[in-house]
Amino acid sequence: MPAAAARAQRQAAYPAVVVRLIDELARLPGIGRRSAERLAFHLLKVPPEDALSLSSAIADARQKVRPCRVCSNLADIGPDAEHTLCAVCADARRDRATIMVVEQPRDLIALEQTGMFRGVYHVLMGRVSPLEGVGPADLTTAELLARIDDPGANLGTAVKEVVLALNPTLEGDGTALFLAAELARRGVKLTRLARGLPAGSQLEYANKAVLADAIEGRRPI
Amino acid sequence: MPAAAARAQRQAAYPAVVVRLIDELARLPGIGRRSAERLAFHLLKVPPEDALSLSSAIADARQKVRPCRVCSNLADIGPDAEHTLCAVCADARRDRATIMVVEQPRDLIALEQTGMFRGVYHVLMGRVSPLEGVGPADLTTAELLARIDDPGANLGTAVKEVVLALNPTLEGDGTALFLAAELARRGVKLTRLARGLPAGSQLEYANKAVLADAIEGRRPI
Repeated sequence: MPAAAARAQRQAAYPAVVVRLIDELARLPGIGRRSAERLAFHLLKVPPEDALSLSSAIADARQKVRPCRVCSNLADIGPDAEHTLCAVCADARRDRATIMVVEQPRDLIALEQTGMFRGVYHVLMGRVSPLEGVGPADLTTAELLARIDDPGANLGTAVKEVVLALNPTLEGDGTALFLAAELARRGVKLTRLARGLPAGSQLEYANKAVLADAIEGRRPI
Repeated sequence: MPAAAARAQRQAAYPAVVVRLIDELARLPGIGRRSAERLAFHLLKVPPEDALSLSSAIADARQKVRPCRVCSNLADIGPDAEHTLCAVCADARRDRATIMVVEQPRDLIALEQTGMFRGVYHVLMGRVSPLEGVGPADLTTAELLARIDDPGANLGTAVKEVVLALNPTLEGDGTALFLAAELARRGVKLTRLARGLPAGSQLEYANKAVLADAIEGRRPI
């Protein structure tokens, strides 16, 4: 049954606000029409304060979170948008001369949890993906280059090293290649995260690409 | 890592409103922590009006939908709570002497889409499930019995037949058994939906319970 016909039939029986809720939920990624109905009925069944709490959490997050004006990481909104700084950029103890470039805020969190990096970040908010029509202009690449070209855009510190911490995937590698070309003529030291055998894994189960990386990147002990 | 520790670590890096949004989304059924994060980032990425539209759809549905005062089906809230009637109960052409008992509003919709039933419904809002601690008192059984005992509670019409349209599952059958016992001494005609081979299926793939139902319920042609 086509979606419009299904909607018309449902509309005949569900109250309009319920139809609207199902439609809105079905727009979320990974949530099909069936799951959207199940979630809608769940929200109609729980105590009203629970549903309203989710409702306000969504509105709050959308209204009070802004990209950090330096690195595009998620940040609580400051007194005004121009002063919004994320927790990392606001921390004066971080080494602002070293920028680690990640695809998304979740990657930043994962890296932060190691406690191994004392520099700052730059969040691209995606990766170059020709198939999905995402080009460099859709990412925060211009902001990254501005930080390197002008210390003023990097809270007053000149950038010495850029660490590419993109995913070891086709798209991540493509993005790294593009950034490497842009950064090469700016005379800044450029590194990327090491590739090889994941700690705790077994060599016999590693695939060819992992083994190839491990051989190519072998180090003296 | 225990949830509290995970939350503390995340809190160190995500803005508090984002943590709250992830926590709220993770409370939805079938949404794990990972999916909740993915949904939260989706909501932070879409145009603000899209996120606010979902937020208001949730609040609206919770505030403007009430159980129908007769059958407990979902209904748009009336001028006041006592006057809330669902679309089926409000329709004077329906045969109010025949009540079909279903577990949830979704079942009602599925049955309505056949266009085969001209009576009215009663939505139990669940089924008796000892394992989940759901007893008859947690359902709208009292309201159903009231409709049968007092025509005043059934919009002025005396009930002649009750059709049990519960799921053909262990819990649905248990609920039917309980209702049958309650209804037996009320002198109302009691029926249940037919069981047998699902239309369009193949006999060789039907399981034992389906075949047993089909044999037991065989009809002259």
